[in-house]
Amino acid sequence: MNTIMGAALPNIPWEERPDKCGDLVWRSSRNPIIPRDLLPGSNSIFNSAVVPFGDGFAGVFRVDNRKREMRIHSGKSRDGIGWEIAQESIEFITDVAELKPFEYNYDPRVCWLEDRYYLTWCNGYHGPTIGVGYTSDFSTFYQLENAFLPYNRNGVLFPRKIGDKYAMLSRPSDTGHTPFGDIFYSESPDLCHWGCHRHVMSPTRQWGWQSTKIGAGPTPIETTEGWLLLYHGVLTSCNGFVYSMGAALLDLDQPWKVLYRTAPYLLAPWTPYECVGDTPNVVFPCAALTDAPTGRIAVYYGAADTVTCLAYTHVDELIEYVKAN
Amino acid sequence: MNTIMGAALPNIPWEERPDKCGDLVWRSSRNPIIPRDLLPGSNSIFNSAVVPFGDGFAGVFRVDNRKREMRIHSGKSRDGIGWEIAQESIEFITDVAELKPFEYNYDPRVCWLEDRYYLTWCNGYHGPTIGVGYTSDFSTFYQLENAFLPYNRNGVLFPRKIGDKYAMLSRPSDTGHTPFGDIFYSESPDLCHWGCHRHVMSPTRQWGWQSTKIGAGPTPIETTEGWLLLYHGVLTSCNGFVYSMGAALLDLDQPWKVLYRTAPYLLAPWTPYECVGDTPNVVFPCAALTDAPTGRIAVYYGAADTVTCLAYTHVDELIEYVKAN
Amino acid sequence: MNTIMGAALPNIPWEERPDKCGDLVWRSSRNPIIPRDLLPGSNSIFNSAVVPFGDGFAGVFRVDNRKREMRIHSGKSRDGIGWEIAQESIEFITDVAELKPFEYNYDPRVCWLEDRYYLTWCNGYHGPTIGVGYTSDFSTFYQLENAFLPYNRNGVLFPRKIGDKYAMLSRPSDTGHTPFGDIFYSESPDLCHWGCHRHVMSPTRQWGWQSTKIGAGPTPIETTEGWLLLYHGVLTSCNGFVYSMGAALLDLDQPWKVLYRTAPYLLAPWTPYECVGDTPNVVFPCAALTDAPTGRIAVYYGAADTVTCLAYTHVDELIEYVKAN
Amino acid sequence: MNTIMGAALPNIPWEERPDKCGDLVWRSSRNPIIPRDLLPGSNSIFNSAVVPFGDGFAGVFRVDNRKREMRIHSGKSRDGIGWEIAQESIEFITDVAELKPFEYNYDPRVCWLEDRYYLTWCNGYHGPTIGVGYTSDFSTFYQLENAFLPYNRNGVLFPRKIGDKYAMLSRPSDTGHTPFGDIFYSESPDLCHWGCHRHVMSPTRQWGWQSTKIGAGPTPIETTEGWLLLYHGVLTSCNGFVYSMGAALLDLDQPWKVLYRTAPYLLAPWTPYECVGDTPNVVFPCAALTDAPTGRIAVYYGAADTVTCLAYTHVDELIEYVKAN
Amino acid sequence: MNTIMGAALPNIPWEERPDKCGDLVWRSSRNPIIPRDLLPGSNSIFNSAVVPFGDGFAGVFRVDNRKREMRIHSGKSRDGIGWEIAQESIEFITDVAELKPFEYNYDPRVCWLEDRYYLTWCNGYHGPTIGVGYTSDFSTFYQLENAFLPYNRNGVLFPRKIGDKYAMLSRPSDTGHTPFGDIFYSESPDLCHWGCHRHVMSPTRQWGWQSTKIGAGPTPIETTEGWLLLYHGVLTSCNGFVYSMGAALLDLDQPWKVLYRTAPYLLAPWTPYECVGDTPNVVFPCAALTDAPTGRIAVYYGAADTVTCLAYTHVDELIEYVKAN
Amino acid sequence: MNTIMGAALPNIPWEERPDKCGDLVWRSSRNPIIPRDLLPGSNSIFNSAVVPFGDGFAGVFRVDNRKREMRIHSGKSRDGIGWEIAQESIEFITDVAELKPFEYNYDPRVCWLEDRYYLTWCNGYHGPTIGVGYTSDFSTFYQLENAFLPYNRNGVLFPRKIGDKYAMLSRPSDTGHTPFGDIFYSESPDLCHWGCHRHVMSPTRQWGWQSTKIGAGPTPIETTEGWLLLYHGVLTSCNGFVYSMGAALLDLDQPWKVLYRTAPYLLAPWTPYECVGDTPNVVFPCAALTDAPTGRIAVYYGAADTVTCLAYTHVDELIEYVKAN
Repeated sequence: MNTIMGAALPNIPWEERPDKCGDLVWRSSRNPIIPRDLLPGSNSIFNSAVVPFGDGFAGVFRVDNRKREMRIHSGKSRDGIGWEIAQESIEFITDVAELKPFEYNYDPRVCWLEDRYYLTWCNGYHGPTIGVGYTSDFSTFYQLENAFLPYNRNGVLFPRKIGDKYAMLSRPSDTGHTPFGDIFYSESPDLCHWGCHRHVMSPTRQWGWQSTKIGAGPTPIETTEGWLLLYHGVLTSCNGFVYSMGAALLDLDQPWKVLYRTAPYLLAPWTPYECVGDTPNVVFPCAALTDAPTGRIAVYYGAADTVTCLAYTHVDELIEYVKAN
Repeated sequence: MNTIMGAALPNIPWEERPDKCGDLVWRSSRNPIIPRDLLPGSNSIFNSAVVPFGDGFAGVFRVDNRKREMRIHSGKSRDGIGWEIAQESIEFITDVAELKPFEYNYDPRVCWLEDRYYLTWCNGYHGPTIGVGYTSDFSTFYQLENAFLPYNRNGVLFPRKIGDKYAMLSRPSDTGHTPFGDIFYSESPDLCHWGCHRHVMSPTRQWGWQSTKIGAGPTPIETTEGWLLLYHGVLTSCNGFVYSMGAALLDLDQPWKVLYRTAPYLLAPWTPYECVGDTPNVVFPCAALTDAPTGRIAVYYGAADTVTCLAYTHVDELIEYVKAN
Repeated sequence: MNTIMGAALPNIPWEERPDKCGDLVWRSSRNPIIPRDLLPGSNSIFNSAVVPFGDGFAGVFRVDNRKREMRIHSGKSRDGIGWEIAQESIEFITDVAELKPFEYNYDPRVCWLEDRYYLTWCNGYHGPTIGVGYTSDFSTFYQLENAFLPYNRNGVLFPRKIGDKYAMLSRPSDTGHTPFGDIFYSESPDLCHWGCHRHVMSPTRQWGWQSTKIGAGPTPIETTEGWLLLYHGVLTSCNGFVYSMGAALLDLDQPWKVLYRTAPYLLAPWTPYECVGDTPNVVFPCAALTDAPTGRIAVYYGAADTVTCLAYTHVDELIEYVKAN
Repeated sequence: MNTIMGAALPNIPWEERPDKCGDLVWRSSRNPIIPRDLLPGSNSIFNSAVVPFGDGFAGVFRVDNRKREMRIHSGKSRDGIGWEIAQESIEFITDVAELKPFEYNYDPRVCWLEDRYYLTWCNGYHGPTIGVGYTSDFSTFYQLENAFLPYNRNGVLFPRKIGDKYAMLSRPSDTGHTPFGDIFYSESPDLCHWGCHRHVMSPTRQWGWQSTKIGAGPTPIETTEGWLLLYHGVLTSCNGFVYSMGAALLDLDQPWKVLYRTAPYLLAPWTPYECVGDTPNVVFPCAALTDAPTGRIAVYYGAADTVTCLAYTHVDELIEYVKAN
Repeated sequence: MNTIMGAALPNIPWEERPDKCGDLVWRSSRNPIIPRDLLPGSNSIFNSAVVPFGDGFAGVFRVDNRKREMRIHSGKSRDGIGWEIAQESIEFITDVAELKPFEYNYDPRVCWLEDRYYLTWCNGYHGPTIGVGYTSDFSTFYQLENAFLPYNRNGVLFPRKIGDKYAMLSRPSDTGHTPFGDIFYSESPDLCHWGCHRHVMSPTRQWGWQSTKIGAGPTPIETTEGWLLLYHGVLTSCNGFVYSMGAALLDLDQPWKVLYRTAPYLLAPWTPYECVGDTPNVVFPCAALTDAPTGRIAVYYGAADTVTCLAYTHVDELIEYVKAN
Repeated sequence: MNTIMGAALPNIPWEERPDKCGDLVWRSSRNPIIPRDLLPGSNSIFNSAVVPFGDGFAGVFRVDNRKREMRIHSGKSRDGIGWEIAQESIEFITDVAELKPFEYNYDPRVCWLEDRYYLTWCNGYHGPTIGVGYTSDFSTFYQLENAFLPYNRNGVLFPRKIGDKYAMLSRPSDTGHTPFGDIFYSESPDLCHWGCHRHVMSPTRQWGWQSTKIGAGPTPIETTEGWLLLYHGVLTSCNGFVYSMGAALLDLDQPWKVLYRTAPYLLAPWTPYECVGDTPNVVFPCAALTDAPTGRIAVYYGAADTVTCLAYTHVDELIEYVKAN
């Protein structure tokens, strides 16, 4: 039986672990797979979300322009490595007049749910909150009501209803470079009204890399062992924040119950493209592709708030490690 | 026709405006009506909510004990001035196991809605958020799901559905002595799931008394001119926060639309019991009684985070003033 | 010979030092001489400047209204104690279009210089800076160019040219509740362009009451011993700023040279009207009347950022004390 | 058997608990017993230590002068209520050249230990640390080496050796208005070198009045139930710190082991002289007199960093309360 | 007609835009043109100003030594690329005794005005302010009065009188790493007294790269379209400040009127020498050479507060872009 | 006569100064000599201490694991360049029950003193303080009482008694990324109780690289000219702390008396491995090997809180430079 309860994705981007590498998660040799200036006028392209689409892949990308405005753009790729990103940012169609004055969009996630691709992102509405929208074709995008009151970031949908309701993780925040942050779970009957908020997990004093704040990363991956959640954790050094990646296993039916959680990080800023850039020392995962038969997982992450990168792992090794640590 | 769209309350607490007083809102000569040590072991009793109940009045009171724990207690009164407050804090009955580990409760509001008295308060659940509960008799209290994710304070229900949905004002915050704060509006089909969040109003740079943050006070009063909202505003002096009271008129059908808003405050910390206490310089309104035929309004407010006070105004004068300023 | 090199002012407000009082500066028994609500709609009246005018006195008063906007108003008095303050704030006539968008005015000083009364005050122009204006009758007021770039407060003119140039003290600041502040001296040939900036004095670590920042108070008083400068000093307690008053003697010809400076304060917040109010613990002198033949000095000061008060001292005792301490 | 393991003090200052008062600790009706201006030139007299001496009492008093320099002065009293305080601050005799450059002295404690009165205080030596000295007559004072490295405050000696070594409580701090603080225990063979540092207790999140920092107050009182420690706790409101008093029982032989600790405070700033002054909202105990046969305890505490006050309690009631809460 | 209203400079340093580069401003392939250790004992050489001089070029360079003292040094170059910098820092000749105690000098600008080269720089005089001096030969330097009161930085002279008066841009600041900053304009009849201060422009919330503060860079370039001002803008990331370069066009006669201003930055820290160094992520322009006939502009900028770099642009393209964006 | 009063160490790691290098201290061409991932599961290996041991060398290394827990590990090396570090962190044997609950260990120093190797390190005990232990074989380690109360870091023993007592330098701190820090000297008769604390030196305003805080580095080196102390100094840029290395000469008998101190730094973060990593811009020396006959000194330092590096200098040149600067 496959550990990942999902589809096959034979064309998942993949590179084998280098021989001398003993790490559970390893980087693509082609990193950064998307340079900061892929688009004319782009300042940086990072913290982006990717899904299988047709024969290939589609995605929603955070593109900061040289005004340093934060926007999201759609993109398509044959192989998940080389990307064509739309020059224009996504303009949502919506019936809600209140949502129309545009402020900013960033850090998107994409999730196939029931019959379409849902997007969640950090949406500026008198402060950062969780925008919700959907698309079927990555050309036309529709916007629904914001899920929560400000101030919130890192809203991540589950890929199916849980107990008759839609479910989302998020990380309530403040108005700035928030120095705290727990992950919460919320439920909705209609993707419009949300309630039954549950606390999932907090930063830890003990394990420094996740001692300041934590936030959900890619759409949770359903496995036989629970929801596999990749998340970022933040350490505060004397010179600022350091973002690393860890993983947790959440109960399948009550996902606010944490079954296991990694004490060590899985990936942290070690390479020049992770350590140097607009924000030094950032590894920020936003999407994961999975191939159930082989257990392969390809993680897309933003590096240094500047470029988009790819790393690989294997579900069984990862789950074993999460359980053991 | 009465301006206030509500019931008569002939026994509303009342004192006429003193002769020499030219102010729109005037203090009770019996202030503070509830001293800090009304209960054995109480440190302070303030920021409390009062409603008509039977022949007299009932209420929910913020009582900080001498551990400086924050609790809410029920109370009853024949005249709205002299109060008997329960020695024990309210213990809610609830089906939601997650809500049971008690952290803290404070700053309650009470609202008669449809068939019972609903309470909202600042409820500690991994941070401050808006607790929701109800009672019919002020003896037994039931707790529902928290309305919102943390971090939030000053949740205030409207006294009827608006457009088929329940409605609440709140002020998203951070984890501490929040230095910002706007009022938002949210809707719910079931008092459990909330959405369609709308921005209502922000602090103003120009009018200093409400330049740091603002938050809804008593349950909005339905009038022919719109919802009359008393609210607090905060100024940051070099020696800390100063809390004052103002008023706004909100659209009856789309209450997130502000029709009028007072530039001057209506009541600010001037008296010793408002300027000296656990937190100097606080006037914090939490409840208002109204008598529709006479247009009398009696406002209950906490003073200096220490005692409970009463002030009076008249709806027509107040609305005229709000419109003019 | 008189110590004070100025005119007689036989009608200077005066009360003898109380018998049991051993202090160099003593308070008026009629304090606060101007209550916060002297005007309808005033929140507070404080930090104000007074000069002899005709048979009596005139002044410019900081009046914060109940929007907590900061304005200056003119006022007149027969005896310097009872004041009639104009209901409307001063509207300046000016040729400079750039100065017309009004932001705020506060903390005025008034100085008779050559042929008219000059005003300086904290003027909002993209931040606080030093406004300059004049009047002959305290009815019509003219505004000149701001003396300095923002951010500056407590600009105080000398009452005559020094070495062919006009002279002003000021205290450069930042945009908020500035936690630092030295007094500087500047010169101008024309009251429009200023230069030759000189450092006068700094806060002191050693003497706590003036350890955070200092700022000039009333127009310096010319004496045979030098310019007598009353100034405020600020201490930062764990609960905020404390403002007290001290004195210094500056060289007559090179006023940036400090001859003497009081180590002890002369007046500090001790009374309820100085300790309790919109900003607790503030004594802030802005004007002094002098009677050269008797050596009497009457100091006007704001108390608790709320009311206006009066204190008395005698020039010879004061100078002796300044020299000795 | 007496609960207090100490001497009789028949002339202990005493007033019975007022009839209507239900509190465990009650204030002297003569408070403040020492006004801020008892000495010519004193700004405030507070946070001071008192012991039986001869037929009456002696003490060491924190006297801030009007330069706002912090000094300690000796004083004597016949009845413990009316005090004569030396006009000049204490000048210590010492062999240690390094200790001679004077910075500041404040918050003294006095402790009879073996054969003389030992003083500990906050001593400025490149930052605040714990000064140690002694006297036999309250006229001549000798200074020993500082007990600890900076930055430290609230050093309090035990009145006898414990397990062959001298013992001291202290509260390590930082260089400013420290926002944290635990009580530690240290041992010394010779009152010069200190080691074997043990953690005693921390602030508590749960009980707000002691949630920011805590520090030992008077010399611990030996009782049959353990060392009775009165201490202060600090709460951080949006307008600054609030200092209250609580109590703990420490193990007689291993005093770093806390047997009991009050969740509620025993005394908090409620009166005008505690709420208004140089630092609003401070109750800061520094000394306690005890009469073993009657169990009476008289606590000296500073109020609002301005004046010295007295409160009373009874050892048996107090211990019973500490154990119960 | 030439767009630049200035002289020809045929030997302006120049490299053509690389083929694949689509940017308006492109870097020299020889960057950094001045390494941090060009001088024995230099820690860094950056934020420096260059002008045509004789057959070649001269300049004033910020050289921080290994004490991390900030000094300015003169330098000369044949081609504007290879520089000989004086080993000793500039020692100014001045008549003003008050200016002689040296504190620090940094971030110089140089401007040919009427008959000599004027220097402005950040001059330590009881805080940072704008020093003014001149030279004719880059060997002997004379110092005039400081232009403004502290606290100020980035003072930049216009290269001719405007409306009969000298003119300077500056950016008032505070005493530290100022988190705010607008550009102001001031006038002087004599380069000694300054007044008629005008606000020019502020940071913008919308365009992140210039959302914290902005400051003038090189001497404004007179063009037929207005004064071309290159300036720096600062963004605050969670890991500190990021400095980028933009441009504006100011009215020729009333330069405080901004005609156009770039929403996107023109140059931002992308390369290793801009992202890594004593202050990561800094691009800070201080000088520009222009060749009117060709419209070439060579911009000197400091990188990472460590080295000096060169970038190129063309005036017509730049002005077209500024107008369009 | 040798300048270094110590043993010969013929196998000291050594590389000659590169030809073109004019610096007093030069880096090893093999830097970083210990990579961050030398151990499986290590995040970083830095700030470590090395001594001669047997035929080769031994050391104690700070190894942060991927939980970002801070631990110290022992290690051995034949040549001082290639190291074998124990996979498991040091587990101390101790009689003191209070010391057993492990919090964290970091920044070790090692010092041969009398008959064994003593370790000091930053030991978590209710905050950072100075742990003390010893070993004879770098396999078994014994822990003694902490030297001081929290909060303290950078405790460094002298290699012999001074005036009959053991001696230690340390840097009292606060609980976080301390923004201040002086070096103090303390004495002990028994390595358990410490007293006679003396101030040694403070940061300097003037020399930026050591303007925020300073802390002792390697064990002081005894020379004919005094104790040679290598230390780190910290500058606060707008983007965080920068750590550099300097040197001082302390009096042999009264080491708290500073004879000389370098105004310039000797080594600062210039290379990629010092500028990029977990904490950018850190050079942090913790150990020095010396060869008395040749005067060679090999300094081990942590770079960027990530890797371990080596630099070289010569004692006579260094002392001459310290005296001259």
